[in-house]
Amino acid sequence: MNSFSLDSETIQKAISIALAEDIGTGDVTTLSLIPAEARAEAVMKARQPLSVAGLDLAAEAYRQIDPSTEITYCCADGDQLNRGDILLHLKGSARAILTAERVSLNFIQRLSGIATLSRQFTDKIAGTKAKLLDTRKTTPGWRKFEKYAVTCGGATNHRFGLYDMILIKDNHLVTLRDAKPNAVAVAIQRARAAYPNLKVEVEADTLEQVSQAADAGADIILLDNMTNEMMSQAVQIVQGRSLLEASGGVTLQTVRGKAETGVDFISVGALTHSVPAVDIGLDFI
Amino acid sequence: MNSFSLDSETIQKAISIALAEDIGTGDVTTLSLIPAEARAEAVMKARQPLSVAGLDLAAEAYRQIDPSTEITYCCADGDQLNRGDILLHLKGSARAILTAERVSLNFIQRLSGIATLSRQFTDKIAGTKAKLLDTRKTTPGWRKFEKYAVTCGGATNHRFGLYDMILIKDNHLVTLRDAKPNAVAVAIQRARAAYPNLKVEVEADTLEQVSQAADAGADIILLDNMTNEMMSQAVQIVQGRSLLEASGGVTLQTVRGKAETGVDFISVGALTHSVPAVDIGLDFI
Amino acid sequence: MNSFSLDSETIQKAISIALAEDIGTGDVTTLSLIPAEARAEAVMKARQPLSVAGLDLAAEAYRQIDPSTEITYCCADGDQLNRGDILLHLKGSARAILTAERVSLNFIQRLSGIATLSRQFTDKIAGTKAKLLDTRKTTPGWRKFEKYAVTCGGATNHRFGLYDMILIKDNHLVTLRDAKPNAVAVAIQRARAAYPNLKVEVEADTLEQVSQAADAGADIILLDNMTNEMMSQAVQIVQGRSLLEASGGVTLQTVRGKAETGVDFISVGALTHSVPAVDIGLDFI
Amino acid sequence: MNSFSLDSETIQKAISIALAEDIGTGDVTTLSLIPAEARAEAVMKARQPLSVAGLDLAAEAYRQIDPSTEITYCCADGDQLNRGDILLHLKGSARAILTAERVSLNFIQRLSGIATLSRQFTDKIAGTKAKLLDTRKTTPGWRKFEKYAVTCGGATNHRFGLYDMILIKDNHLVTLRDAKPNAVAVAIQRARAAYPNLKVEVEADTLEQVSQAADAGADIILLDNMTNEMMSQAVQIVQGRSLLEASGGVTLQTVRGKAETGVDFISVGALTHSVPAVDIGLDFI
Amino acid sequence: MNSFSLDSETIQKAISIALAEDIGTGDVTTLSLIPAEARAEAVMKARQPLSVAGLDLAAEAYRQIDPSTEITYCCADGDQLNRGDILLHLKGSARAILTAERVSLNFIQRLSGIATLSRQFTDKIAGTKAKLLDTRKTTPGWRKFEKYAVTCGGATNHRFGLYDMILIKDNHLVTLRDAKPNAVAVAIQRARAAYPNLKVEVEADTLEQVSQAADAGADIILLDNMTNEMMSQAVQIVQGRSLLEASGGVTLQTVRGKAETGVDFISVGALTHSVPAVDIGLDFI
Amino acid sequence: MNSFSLDSETIQKAISIALAEDIGTGDVTTLSLIPAEARAEAVMKARQPLSVAGLDLAAEAYRQIDPSTEITYCCADGDQLNRGDILLHLKGSARAILTAERVSLNFIQRLSGIATLSRQFTDKIAGTKAKLLDTRKTTPGWRKFEKYAVTCGGATNHRFGLYDMILIKDNHLVTLRDAKPNAVAVAIQRARAAYPNLKVEVEADTLEQVSQAADAGADIILLDNMTNEMMSQAVQIVQGRSLLEASGGVTLQTVRGKAETGVDFISVGALTHSVPAVDIGLDFI
Repeated sequence: MNSFSLDSETIQKAISIALAEDIGTGDVTTLSLIPAEARAEAVMKARQPLSVAGLDLAAEAYRQIDPSTEITYCCADGDQLNRGDILLHLKGSARAILTAERVSLNFIQRLSGIATLSRQFTDKIAGTKAKLLDTRKTTPGWRKFEKYAVTCGGATNHRFGLYDMILIKDNHLVTLRDAKPNAVAVAIQRARAAYPNLKVEVEADTLEQVSQAADAGADIILLDNMTNEMMSQAVQIVQGRSLLEASGGVTLQTVRGKAETGVDFISVGALTHSVPAVDIGLDFI
Repeated sequence: MNSFSLDSETIQKAISIALAEDIGTGDVTTLSLIPAEARAEAVMKARQPLSVAGLDLAAEAYRQIDPSTEITYCCADGDQLNRGDILLHLKGSARAILTAERVSLNFIQRLSGIATLSRQFTDKIAGTKAKLLDTRKTTPGWRKFEKYAVTCGGATNHRFGLYDMILIKDNHLVTLRDAKPNAVAVAIQRARAAYPNLKVEVEADTLEQVSQAADAGADIILLDNMTNEMMSQAVQIVQGRSLLEASGGVTLQTVRGKAETGVDFISVGALTHSVPAVDIGLDFI
Repeated sequence: MNSFSLDSETIQKAISIALAEDIGTGDVTTLSLIPAEARAEAVMKARQPLSVAGLDLAAEAYRQIDPSTEITYCCADGDQLNRGDILLHLKGSARAILTAERVSLNFIQRLSGIATLSRQFTDKIAGTKAKLLDTRKTTPGWRKFEKYAVTCGGATNHRFGLYDMILIKDNHLVTLRDAKPNAVAVAIQRARAAYPNLKVEVEADTLEQVSQAADAGADIILLDNMTNEMMSQAVQIVQGRSLLEASGGVTLQTVRGKAETGVDFISVGALTHSVPAVDIGLDFI
Repeated sequence: MNSFSLDSETIQKAISIALAEDIGTGDVTTLSLIPAEARAEAVMKARQPLSVAGLDLAAEAYRQIDPSTEITYCCADGDQLNRGDILLHLKGSARAILTAERVSLNFIQRLSGIATLSRQFTDKIAGTKAKLLDTRKTTPGWRKFEKYAVTCGGATNHRFGLYDMILIKDNHLVTLRDAKPNAVAVAIQRARAAYPNLKVEVEADTLEQVSQAADAGADIILLDNMTNEMMSQAVQIVQGRSLLEASGGVTLQTVRGKAETGVDFISVGALTHSVPAVDIGLDFI
Repeated sequence: MNSFSLDSETIQKAISIALAEDIGTGDVTTLSLIPAEARAEAVMKARQPLSVAGLDLAAEAYRQIDPSTEITYCCADGDQLNRGDILLHLKGSARAILTAERVSLNFIQRLSGIATLSRQFTDKIAGTKAKLLDTRKTTPGWRKFEKYAVTCGGATNHRFGLYDMILIKDNHLVTLRDAKPNAVAVAIQRARAAYPNLKVEVEADTLEQVSQAADAGADIILLDNMTNEMMSQAVQIVQGRSLLEASGGVTLQTVRGKAETGVDFISVGALTHSVPAVDIGLDFI
Repeated sequence: MNSFSLDSETIQKAISIALAEDIGTGDVTTLSLIPAEARAEAVMKARQPLSVAGLDLAAEAYRQIDPSTEITYCCADGDQLNRGDILLHLKGSARAILTAERVSLNFIQRLSGIATLSRQFTDKIAGTKAKLLDTRKTTPGWRKFEKYAVTCGGATNHRFGLYDMILIKDNHLVTLRDAKPNAVAVAIQRARAAYPNLKVEVEADTLEQVSQAADAGADIILLDNMTNEMMSQAVQIVQGRSLLEASGGVTLQTVRGKAETGVDFISVGALTHSVPAVDIGLDFI
């Protein structure tokens, strides 16, 4: 069971914004060339191997332009497709299919790109106890979609925003300049008192900070840019008292090594901030 | 003179949406740790060579959280920076700087990524008459920003949407199945009659179509996935009667060759659909 | 085939705004007098000869108040009706029909007024090659509807806004004070370089400017307030290199003379800025 | 003292919508021709005698494009100007003045058109006790502005919408088919019971209905399409127990006669539904 | 016949805002525990005697989360229920029912609280001619719902806002400091001239002001914090020339006495500003 | 340091909605009686002892109507005032002060009512380790304000919505009918796997469930409607492994007894769902 689902209102609003942006005062090419009554049939096809994410968005674009469009799903979000596999089959007003094409593709190409990259990472760490996490480095406004796409690639979501978890970073501690040696412990305690319903994570750059954070009862400790060796030591120090998250410059080449240190999570910003679109096309039949 | 500028209302709205998404019901970490009266100073710094785009967006995030933040621009959009160069200098409420950081970076890292990639392409074709164009393969809702970033990298914008130009594609012609051999000519004429104020571009897959389109008075002809040799022939056939645009799978490796065929434009979807974020960080002083 | 159609989302939003404005916290007369279960039947009738525009808007007002209202179209947009002809037949909740009446009529009376006036103009120039164009002198916020109404009267749309065409006016040239004698040519060239995908139109007050604009490759030349004689000369000078648009104080009395000079377009601001509402009423049966 | 004023939030929102509609993705002419730093000075000038309405809207258009524009009011709403008189003096960014021009004019030309027509009507009935009223036959969405313009022409506002007064029309009574001979009286009593805080007006087509309405305590009686003679009789019958409003096909030719029958109000739909724009232009200095 | 009804658009918008507020980026408990295909059945039950208001809102919450939810109304707004009576019966997606529960209850518990309190007051004054009125002391944004709930409890609505009636209060007269002894009369006359379509109510603190207001033709006089004896005298003085409204600190204990003085209305702010939620629960079957 | 603050954008939007609702098409009383240039001075005064919450909202109402209003804060949110103490001092346009009065009071009377009630509860449990929590039983749309008001009364916020914490209730477990005896443990484990960044709370009705939840590692256990004796036993059983929250029908009379059982939190829905407005008035000077 996927514990994340996109609600239809969010999808509708996003597609509505995107269509308004693209269509503006009218799709002049289609309106001037294609008769209102013309019908068409088309398939959305994978032009490379990929993991699917965003079918509901892709379909909604056509539905919004013409609610009578017949749309058949030929796969499901999370599926891994080969080159040539079909994602959606469309039948309806030719104008609608032509006008919605670009918006539909823009969404599904990016979201499937995220799912595909996430899948590549999760495959690499299969068999270890580590889970792959995303970050807040998402496209402004589309975080919900991108975090959903991440789960379609088998990864797990980190916090959704600044509001649903305490994450004490370097810069927070720097700002608390006057704090005593036990700055980390004090910060954890303050945060917990203010928001007893939220988990507290702390960024640690040194093993001493790791130790201090675990002692102070941090729920999670973020190991920032540590070597694999340091991370193994952190696992030893913490002994399960806190969960551990590896972070910083993780690539497909390095992710397995980090997972094998025994950390609980590995977070990767590139899943959402540097993802190439996958190639998906619309072919008229 | 840059012929494209972002209006402040568009910027404000985008930042407002992004901050709402990220902050939700509150930046719980900052609120529980940092006193309301704490002050901070920080710099936004390039961690790799890059072309800048989006300074106004990056600054607006801080300004919206606290209008009294003192923001100094250390460069301008379009500038090419080295690793370590500073983009913005910030001074103000510590809470505001910590809370706005991620949204500010999310915008400028992506937009500067687009400018940086655009600059790499335009550098490759320097000295030819070809201009680099973007496409409509942009992030839904952020097209205006991404098209702006493209110009910061020295490239030129293609149409903004379906509304400001006629672009007759393969799929339009396919839909007009019953059309005679002179389908291209008929389509051009119909489009022009309906919208006398708009330019008409036509996609051509063969040299025969190129010839037909030029004869019919197309303003621009899109040469879709043609070899360099075919494109050179197209240039000969058209003899300046229409402008020519090369399109399809253009890379940094192949762009120069295409430019040297004599086409007027080369359009590259990857400028906006597959761009890695550049590395920019916020350092507290 | 009408190359312009109103999308249902735009219609829904406009009606929603208009109903909210008119109904506010409630149609107190109807709520206090008419039982919720009362039914009614009514016809919307032309009380003068007219060209129809806006049936979908008129119908949507009733539909939004009560989606179960049965609405029968008795004619189509663009039709020319006589006094007494019926536009819509309505059957449903008496409250809904009474409450939506004014908003429905406010839209269709104005839009049909525009179509009716446009038809009077286009009838006058029948048989010439000139096409009648509208302008941007529309009611703020309703441009899409008014431009649609213009096409229902047989006229053609000029640009939709400042974004879909270059139109270099007197005031632009005045602002470029320092420009050389070839100001027009320079301006055309600059505009084209910045936006290769857009057509360039230039306003000309003298025949010399006409000549310069045609030489510089203007797509269209706007002949501003010229006498018919000057316009005939302009046609001679240009020889089809650019399209020509007559503009300025055109009336039903003068439009034919202008058309016969051989210009391609005649634009008339009064089509949208000074149009009397046509008389349409709602009769209960 | 004018008892009606436009609040700045309503003005800002309207201008923002209108500018978005007109500018879309950018004023391509101005952006490509006019340097960002160019300055200009211009005056908005009456090209015919007129009554002014909407200066704040006209000014806001320029202010929104560039808040630093220096705007000087050379007259006030309600003033009667001669041909050549100046309304506004503008100094600032050339781009801003060029881009905002059309939206600014579209508002002030229509609203001053309404004020000018209202003034012509109120001048005709000067010296009688009758007041000129507007109706709900306004442009959807702009009722507040148009009702304000009406007061700038010396007229008085009728109800703002369906919510702030009971107005029992013909169609309401028709729907209450089963009602006894005293239908009017029953309706008045019901409405008053439901909304004790609102005035009750009733439409009367016959003198008998007038009598019945006055007996039932109607606050106002609308005399629908009555001859002047009938209206004089209605005045006699009512004897000041209710106020009387003349309505239906009133023109500049007939308004005085109606006023002299002794009615309290004359309402004229044409004030807002069939008003020609007045000629106002922007001249660069 | 209830002369007030809630339109579905207003309901939909309110529920949409409330669900967005509560659900944010997702109902994490339900999403992680309840399978998407799980079904459930539940009843919304009164846990105390109460008057119902807001069934449509309560139902809409479930409908918005899942339009296929089967919802059966077991009573109607305005009904008086006993402990244990059922309001709604629900059958559908378990996720939807769990996620919408709180928003649904938050609306109906408060609105039924208002109806219940209103009913207690109206029961107290049964048999007198006085009507119970609400005030503008409502929850910001929800006035329409709260005024509707008041009518479900048998009370009558006072004005909806500052726009649909003139109500001259103490503070208005204070501000008009320079006014002569006949301040009240002058104010009434001015207000009536500016808005001939609106009723005029005046606040009176003394019997002299009552007398003056009645002489000046006030439609309603508000007797502010007067003793029952003074109110009886006011009734004598006015002799039906104006309607009288008692106001100020009315409780369930004192309301009957005030009604028996012969006033027309008694207004009670507590109906909406200090109302306890009634206890309604959702039981799964 | 208060760890919760209201951002100005949220305040501005709420006041804007509330003013629009109340003012509609205009404050007809003020517009017709008070000259635009009239000035006034007034104080907002406590008419009973109270704890303050919402000063920024109260002030914003005046500021939005007229930004030039001079507003002096005479106390701060969280302060405890006596009858007669002044909250705000206002000086500015008489129209603005009169028009904004009701909206300003509606906000501050309710929010201060919440703060006052919260303070009464927190005073009762002073000296125990228990913290007072609020719930999600808030006015739809105003949760952020009401949760803020709760903190002004010295209480602590529970989760903000369905998104920032897992709270497994009775109805969730009921829906998972098929679950084994260890249903609670399974649910906790599933929730934690799906959202590793969120805390998990579980509702327990029996001591056995308490034990099971603590064994399964619940972060918090909600003791639903338990007697004080049962709660003391729960404290013994859990031994600090999980935090404990008492819930259900807590009153000012019973709250101390519950606190003395040793639980960590006591949550009270009435803090926000059944709170009487406090009496605050505006006096003109």
